[in-house]
Amino acid sequence: MTTAIRVTVWNEYRHERRNPKVSAIYPDGIHTVIAQALQTSGFQVRTATLDEPEHGLTQEVLDQTDVLTWWGHMAHKDVSDEIVERVQQRVFNGMGLIVLHSGHFSKIFKRLMGTTCDLKWRESNDHERLWVVAPGHPITEGLGEYIELEHEEMYGEHFDIPAPETLVFVSWFSGGEVFRSGCCYTRGQGKIFYFRPGHETIPTYHHPDVQRVISNAVRWAAPIPRMQRIFGNTPALEQH
Amino acid sequence: MTTAIRVTVWNEYRHERRNPKVSAIYPDGIHTVIAQALQTSGFQVRTATLDEPEHGLTQEVLDQTDVLTWWGHMAHKDVSDEIVERVQQRVFNGMGLIVLHSGHFSKIFKRLMGTTCDLKWRESNDHERLWVVAPGHPITEGLGEYIELEHEEMYGEHFDIPAPETLVFVSWFSGGEVFRSGCCYTRGQGKIFYFRPGHETIPTYHHPDVQRVISNAVRWAAPIPRMQRIFGNTPALEQH
Amino acid sequence: MTTAIRVTVWNEYRHERRNPKVSAIYPDGIHTVIAQALQTSGFQVRTATLDEPEHGLTQEVLDQTDVLTWWGHMAHKDVSDEIVERVQQRVFNGMGLIVLHSGHFSKIFKRLMGTTCDLKWRESNDHERLWVVAPGHPITEGLGEYIELEHEEMYGEHFDIPAPETLVFVSWFSGGEVFRSGCCYTRGQGKIFYFRPGHETIPTYHHPDVQRVISNAVRWAAPIPRMQRIFGNTPALEQH
Amino acid sequence: MTTAIRVTVWNEYRHERRNPKVSAIYPDGIHTVIAQALQTSGFQVRTATLDEPEHGLTQEVLDQTDVLTWWGHMAHKDVSDEIVERVQQRVFNGMGLIVLHSGHFSKIFKRLMGTTCDLKWRESNDHERLWVVAPGHPITEGLGEYIELEHEEMYGEHFDIPAPETLVFVSWFSGGEVFRSGCCYTRGQGKIFYFRPGHETIPTYHHPDVQRVISNAVRWAAPIPRMQRIFGNTPALEQH
Repeated sequence: MTTAIRVTVWNEYRHERRNPKVSAIYPDGIHTVIAQALQTSGFQVRTATLDEPEHGLTQEVLDQTDVLTWWGHMAHKDVSDEIVERVQQRVFNGMGLIVLHSGHFSKIFKRLMGTTCDLKWRESNDHERLWVVAPGHPITEGLGEYIELEHEEMYGEHFDIPAPETLVFVSWFSGGEVFRSGCCYTRGQGKIFYFRPGHETIPTYHHPDVQRVISNAVRWAAPIPRMQRIFGNTPALEQH
Repeated sequence: MTTAIRVTVWNEYRHERRNPKVSAIYPDGIHTVIAQALQTSGFQVRTATLDEPEHGLTQEVLDQTDVLTWWGHMAHKDVSDEIVERVQQRVFNGMGLIVLHSGHFSKIFKRLMGTTCDLKWRESNDHERLWVVAPGHPITEGLGEYIELEHEEMYGEHFDIPAPETLVFVSWFSGGEVFRSGCCYTRGQGKIFYFRPGHETIPTYHHPDVQRVISNAVRWAAPIPRMQRIFGNTPALEQH
Repeated sequence: MTTAIRVTVWNEYRHERRNPKVSAIYPDGIHTVIAQALQTSGFQVRTATLDEPEHGLTQEVLDQTDVLTWWGHMAHKDVSDEIVERVQQRVFNGMGLIVLHSGHFSKIFKRLMGTTCDLKWRESNDHERLWVVAPGHPITEGLGEYIELEHEEMYGEHFDIPAPETLVFVSWFSGGEVFRSGCCYTRGQGKIFYFRPGHETIPTYHHPDVQRVISNAVRWAAPIPRMQRIFGNTPALEQH
Repeated sequence: MTTAIRVTVWNEYRHERRNPKVSAIYPDGIHTVIAQALQTSGFQVRTATLDEPEHGLTQEVLDQTDVLTWWGHMAHKDVSDEIVERVQQRVFNGMGLIVLHSGHFSKIFKRLMGTTCDLKWRESNDHERLWVVAPGHPITEGLGEYIELEHEEMYGEHFDIPAPETLVFVSWFSGGEVFRSGCCYTRGQGKIFYFRPGHETIPTYHHPDVQRVISNAVRWAAPIPRMQRIFGNTPALEQH
């Protein structure tokens, strides 16, 4: 691929403007830290946030986006159904989607999964270890056997998602839970990756292995150039 | 299991009342033929149709339903969103769902899949052969290597669904197409089976192998008695 | 199914005869405890052990076996290749196979998986918790959200197996590891379930939830009556 | 990736030297045509054939191979078990493997699958159409909705393989059969792709879409740089 993959980093961007504990870690927002990491990896990156017009996700922006990353938490309900519909259509047409942490409860993820996407959670500085269970998968490129996060919010099973097409990471938490933390899906021509870590009060997106996974996932999720699919009433094919 | 599996056979039941060609084949509706076949297999069966109050799917009916079968075509949009939501919640809690033929475009199936569920189609009396590709699967019990349907409507790939958890049948059509005709999914605690054949102008639901597949699928999709899942804020587990 | 499922419980049966610590827990062998639990569940059970002629697995015994359970550890290499081949063929023809604990390194499991089946392990009385991640699956019938084993040998990822067709359990260990502890596969017409717990120095097979899982797995893995598959040179099918 | 992917194209190379009908199509062997196509795609390509010492697959050659393609048919049994073992180990360590057509019955493929890999077949110039069923998958890059092959040997279901991790192509044959023609697997850290077409008496490997699929598959199957997996007795991890 000679031209850079075009990434749009979407962020709710509300915790950072209201909670000093969060802004101390992400003074310019979670999106800025993720965007900088992706730029360093050679992608062509822009950002978009909830309180911009059309949440920063105009049709034009989406049409120029190969992969969209999504972080949201306290304001899922403020995302307009029209924009969710627009993002979903773009996924069907091939745009990759990387859903981060509390984005499990976003409208777009729930709609693409068809389940509640509910889970257990606990904010008590659990120690997390994300074990690689798919060691040949491109999303694990350059990683060791696990990613170590000294403190993170706990997410525990049962995680109410469809069985992933590929399960890449399983998390261990010191409090006694496990979690399917890296999950690949396809919807239409679009590839989707859910990646668990990233609580807003912890500097997880500064962690080099977390940044590496997001970069790897962008590369994996980028669309491939190919045919239009044809639907509807179709004549029989010529036979030889 | 000592008590019979309770099945509700749902049918749109409009073609049969409007189109003499359809009523000649299904004078009492598609649902009646399916229900009789399932009763013969030993299930406890009731039927429900679109034009009944609440489409025949009150909360009480759903609570007493282990497996719901769904046939719809011309009136998908007339199914109320509230009832669709109710059916979906019941699937999440364990009710099985068998989606038949043109039900691929029903609100409930599209919502559970998260995709458009679009496909190619052609009404030209194609010859269809449904090949078994999962020969140990309980849905294939008692079948030969394929099911032969002398005439059927063609459905062709690309069928825009998530990759099935288990692919049970692949159809061959004389006009040159193939189709993933038997597809298993899980959503929440509920099992879902999509089964392709069943165009309203063809006596497909009178075919013994088609009836057998639906019976097998009901048995496979019946809920299992087990725990409630717990979601939300959870304390750490005691360690030994 | 009106006739009882016929189970053969196979055990290496060497630790129990050499190590007093093991015989204190399983005086008549691991197989006897498993067999009793399965009899109580209504199955028709026999046992077979390594040092019997043909390891107790004559063609006649296998032909009368619907589901075979397998526990081995220190003597995998003493299992004859001819018997392994015989078991494999029987799996292809529909016999279910439940592989227990250290059976991950048995010849039959490695041959059916096509991988090394290697893993991490540690004998240090880790606390284990097997979380259900497939809550609608028949193997989880009657269980809570997890199975708690106060002490067990640790098995850790990476577990070098093909990605399971269905992942049913994920284990958490107090020492910091996770493990895919309940894994479903199909090979030919036979269903295979790998179930992790069961170190010989710990009374794991006396645990009611462990017994329940093995019973559920037997029911799930039982063969279905159906067609012979036809292979080889085949004429074209008649077309209508 | 700045350095070219290193491909070894392996061919049995016996039909071409014995059967004038085959040598008319592949005068320098099937491997030469595949190798030229891959070179044109920018890969660093070498070839190896059965009758070379060590079948051309010395440890050194395999260590320098990122992806191995395999065509064999009449002489599967002449491939030495030692070399098969060597190839398998290399796959476990990350080498990609593309198995072509009658390679379904090769020792290496059967060993990695754990099944018989048997199928139906017929040499009667069936018309074949390979439908894409995974439209976002990198192996389908640049293709239309199907690949059309005017004449090919028929392969029909049941194809006795484990369910593919991703099913990419399903073939339609004019004689009435279907076949899972493009199947992705992972074994250890290695990726495997089975691709059906390529009978020796038909110029299939000259077909641009067939060449494109093989190139795409090489790119998909190339190993990723990453950690060594650690197996065996392991101390507990430090906790924070």
